Amino acid sequence: MAATAGDAARILSRRDLSFLLYEWLDAAALTTRERFADHSRETFEAAIDTSAKIAADHFQPINRLLDENEPTFDGEKVTTPAPLKRALAAFAESGLTAAGQDYDLGGMQLPSVIEKACVAYVMGASVAAAGYPMLTVGNANLLVAHGSREQVDRYVRPMMNGRFFGTMCLSEPQAGSSLADITTRAERQADGTWRLFGNKMWISGGEHDLAENIVHLVLARTVVPGEPPLPGVKGISIFIVPRTLVGDDGRLGERNDVVLAGLNHKMGYRGTTNCLLNFGEGRFTPGGRAGAIGELVGAPNQGLAIMFHMMNEARIGVGLGAVMLAYTGYLHALDYARQRPQGRRPGAKDPRAPQVPIITHADVRRMLLAQKAYAEGSLALVLYCARLVDDQHSAPDEATRRRAHLLLELLTPIVKSWPSQWGQESVSLAVQVHGGYGYTRDYPVEQFYRDQRLNPIHEGTHGIQALDLLGRKMNLADGAAAQAFATVIGDTAARAGAASAEWGGHGAALVSLTARVGTTVRRLLGQHDPELGLANASVFLEAFGHLVLGWVWLEQALVAHDALGQRGLETGGAGGAPDEDDESCFYRGKLQAARFFLRWELPKVTPMLELLDSVDPTCHAMRDEWF
Amino acid sequence: MAATAGDAARILSRRDLSFLLYEWLDAAALTTRERFADHSRETFEAAIDTSAKIAADHFQPINRLLDENEPTFDGEKVTTPAPLKRALAAFAESGLTAAGQDYDLGGMQLPSVIEKACVAYVMGASVAAAGYPMLTVGNANLLVAHGSREQVDRYVRPMMNGRFFGTMCLSEPQAGSSLADITTRAERQADGTWRLFGNKMWISGGEHDLAENIVHLVLARTVVPGEPPLPGVKGISIFIVPRTLVGDDGRLGERNDVVLAGLNHKMGYRGTTNCLLNFGEGRFTPGGRAGAIGELVGAPNQGLAIMFHMMNEARIGVGLGAVMLAYTGYLHALDYARQRPQGRRPGAKDPRAPQVPIITHADVRRMLLAQKAYAEGSLALVLYCARLVDDQHSAPDEATRRRAHLLLELLTPIVKSWPSQWGQESVSLAVQVHGGYGYTRDYPVEQFYRDQRLNPIHEGTHGIQALDLLGRKMNLADGAAAQAFATVIGDTAARAGAASAEWGGHGAALVSLTARVGTTVRRLLGQHDPELGLANASVFLEAFGHLVLGWVWLEQALVAHDALGQRGLETGGAGGAPDEDDESCFYRGKLQAARFFLRWELPKVTPMLELLDSVDPTCHAMRDEWF
Repeated sequence: MAATAGDAARILSRRDLSFLLYEWLDAAALTTRERFADHSRETFEAAIDTSAKIAADHFQPINRLLDENEPTFDGEKVTTPAPLKRALAAFAESGLTAAGQDYDLGGMQLPSVIEKACVAYVMGASVAAAGYPMLTVGNANLLVAHGSREQVDRYVRPMMNGRFFGTMCLSEPQAGSSLADITTRAERQADGTWRLFGNKMWISGGEHDLAENIVHLVLARTVVPGEPPLPGVKGISIFIVPRTLVGDDGRLGERNDVVLAGLNHKMGYRGTTNCLLNFGEGRFTPGGRAGAIGELVGAPNQGLAIMFHMMNEARIGVGLGAVMLAYTGYLHALDYARQRPQGRRPGAKDPRAPQVPIITHADVRRMLLAQKAYAEGSLALVLYCARLVDDQHSAPDEATRRRAHLLLELLTPIVKSWPSQWGQESVSLAVQVHGGYGYTRDYPVEQFYRDQRLNPIHEGTHGIQALDLLGRKMNLADGAAAQAFATVIGDTAARAGAASAEWGGHGAALVSLTARVGTTVRRLLGQHDPELGLANASVFLEAFGHLVLGWVWLEQALVAHDALGQRGLETGGAGGAPDEDDESCFYRGKLQAARFFLRWELPKVTPMLELLDSVDPTCHAMRDEWF
Repeated sequence: MAATAGDAARILSRRDLSFLLYEWLDAAALTTRERFADHSRETFEAAIDTSAKIAADHFQPINRLLDENEPTFDGEKVTTPAPLKRALAAFAESGLTAAGQDYDLGGMQLPSVIEKACVAYVMGASVAAAGYPMLTVGNANLLVAHGSREQVDRYVRPMMNGRFFGTMCLSEPQAGSSLADITTRAERQADGTWRLFGNKMWISGGEHDLAENIVHLVLARTVVPGEPPLPGVKGISIFIVPRTLVGDDGRLGERNDVVLAGLNHKMGYRGTTNCLLNFGEGRFTPGGRAGAIGELVGAPNQGLAIMFHMMNEARIGVGLGAVMLAYTGYLHALDYARQRPQGRRPGAKDPRAPQVPIITHADVRRMLLAQKAYAEGSLALVLYCARLVDDQHSAPDEATRRRAHLLLELLTPIVKSWPSQWGQESVSLAVQVHGGYGYTRDYPVEQFYRDQRLNPIHEGTHGIQALDLLGRKMNLADGAAAQAFATVIGDTAARAGAASAEWGGHGAALVSLTARVGTTVRRLLGQHDPELGLANASVFLEAFGHLVLGWVWLEQALVAHDALGQRGLETGGAGGAPDEDDESCFYRGKLQAARFFLRWELPKVTPMLELLDSVDPTCHAMRDEWF
């Protein structure tokens, strides 16, 4: 497929983005905070314009090319396609890598919610290409929060201008989800420096030819002569291990002892290299001997705490990638459904009449409306969580910061897992709308489907998110996080009741489900055998996720309802004259997607809660030898 | 991946197959019918042994190779990998292509249910390679039923011994699901022969280098000089159009005017060529002029009726392919879960203790049990339908034949759609059990996931199946088909009530759901606006499908319950001593999978029926301009 200039309108609906940012989340109000005082809605929009343009000009046109031309490894070096370098250079030159960073680091000091809106475009244009800057930003954020001034100067500044890229090295071949079992060692030397030895698996962006240097952040078990090592997660620290050593003057020095052992070949996401890396195998000998030289970040043995500190934002990032595959898939399917003639309406059987565009068929509208509900709903959730990140960091009062923190902790498993799960259903429907064409590599949805399948696996599998939500988050701070969420639901329901009987009814249903979820949690966690309750965690994750999305859609419906009301328009289901303007149609679409979610999707929660309340032992009792 | 000899035990559980064939469906009883009088359980087993061995030796080892080495087209000819030719030759030499055919055609005259069991192995080993013989068998079955004696001799006999392969040419670029809109013409010549002109799309096996000849069965609009053409589906006939003409003596003659316009490049199923074919473009000039020479099959203008006559079996075939991807995916995931150590049980936090195999984790058992329920359940459904095919054709009494026919008509949309939908969920869980490894092309599940996505698209999309079920089948023969199904459910429930309170409760629930479905159908089809009812057809398909599978699992549970009872064993949920033998463990696995389906899956039907009963207008009312 030729690399032609792309089309931002097939990545993301700018009208929807504005609706979410300004009509729902009131992002403009953030400009009253000191950190964002130089900003205005205009500066926010300018940043989003820039990102949309780069996404359409540089990322979207190469997405298939990256899929068809995987990075190659000749035993010495990794080669990536030249257009990828140009796209990433354009992104770095725009300053977007530092969109959220402080001015004194060369950043734009944009709120998280606006940064995520910018990132949405590049992710939707090419999630694999976007992986490199996203990993780099995550790495930089960790160092800004926990690194020394010197570490920030040496590593973060070159990352912000695109000279260095970053990675996160957590997993090992024998330790994927179980970080307690990593065996990579960081040995303290007599001179106080550290040398690392071990193998890291699944390292995205772990080796490539795209930057002058790669800054690995590596979890390793600290070994200090004369001190007994701490077992499990307690003995893990986090280290900067640059591919090439960096001098105090910022110049690149010797090659560090980090080498690529092999590239993984994936179903999708092929443009992002994914590697097995060997640390300290002696292929290079910095300072005259084997061992990868690393710099400790923060205090020793705090590696996991530091890593988890950044995990919420990383998980929002994965969620956003999943959202954007669903979103661009939806827009492609919508476009196809409007163009493709096929069949006639039921009852209109005259075969000599022209065929109708397939969007005319109710079942195609169902598939499109489901995609709209999944994609726009999960984008709303991601932006809401990003808004919580802003409140957590920069809200003027402690109570708001605390509340935002608790809600964010609670919602993080959802914002990671829900778009991953339903985003795949969404892309599958996008394929289905295309029929046989959607199954061919001539249409972008085919790639979106393969790319999307990674999301329920990386950054904590679906099952890990479920255990986090049920086992940790629902009772966080003695249940204060869950209580904060119940209060949010109650507020929304009260506004819904004031708006109309239709929306008030949905609000009341959400309040009732929320109360019921509380009972379910107590029941599951109150089991004599804790494994029995946790054996149902995945169903709980899915039930709670649907409840959260039901709230997201009710919130959007209330905004749209008010907007139509201000125009003096009715908002009933059959409302809407055919000649309404684009704005009114937009709001009617929001109401209809909300109805779809609240009527077609939310009721799925009830049998899930009934199953959970029965504390069903089927899976728990199943034995290996019975399979 | 090197082509090593495969492992039939990772394709299909032979113990499960025997359970379904002999303990549930009593396939051995078929040997009392005249057509199968020479057969015995031993001859059935010998055929299955042969197929399992060919599948493991020839198909499974090349499955990845076929994926990585797509057929190529140099503008003149299509080249497929050499190992594919050897696999297909082994299959043909075994005689399995003619497994179900009459002795006088060189067939084995096996019952459909045994033929499907044989086919299951090759499909599970390589669904793409299996595509060629499956298409050929479908083609041959149509000709045996509707062709002349000469046509059978000329085309079917060489297909049965592997010299010729067959295709079905229905779709066209402008007419996928809408066959009324095909424009390929068959023009009757002055001498009574036919010449075809037009383009056919999505032709699986449409061109290749695997056989001496390819026999296309082509739907085309008949054009007879002096007669006005009939519009829509009424004017369509079906023709044999061989790639190379075949003389009365069976010898190959001139090249016919059928040429490959291009190969489609797919997400999966890559080993089966899929083509755009041009008929009559004049590249070849048989008999000295342009036009593809075709032979009419059956009467003129009966093309669709003849094609649909074979459609039930073709749809069972697609369902079986979907089943087998799920089934082999499940067995691969089970094997991985038993081998892969990761993490520890909740509460066992000592990081110095060894890690446990992941099958120890309840959530992994959930994923495996769900796969077992989907894969074994849908295999049971396919074999049940194949048994109905046998009853339809060879049951001694008319009432049984009629009942089988009605049930088969009713269940065909389910046997095609349910395995396609839930088989994809099943393979997705198989990927998830593998974690990151499952997303790499080093593990077979990655390919199964891509292969499987075709199944809800071809042989009638999911939406087409839904319209067929709700709009046609539920009221077939004045509701006699639905009534036959309700009687089946009632019989099962009565036996379940006699077995135990647990299974009796599930039986009663199925009876109640079945009655409720009847009400739902009347409500949906009784709408003043027929489009409104049909706008909900997909949800109805999924609700009814789950109900059918609930019945399939209750049937299996009753067999297992009885078997355990005959061994003097308790069958409660917590039952089973650790030292029970393999046979008892097998039955306990069946009971546990039945519990999973009936407790975790079947309750999903209730909110679907509630939605349907509300005749929700959301999708129907949605307008193009609101998206």
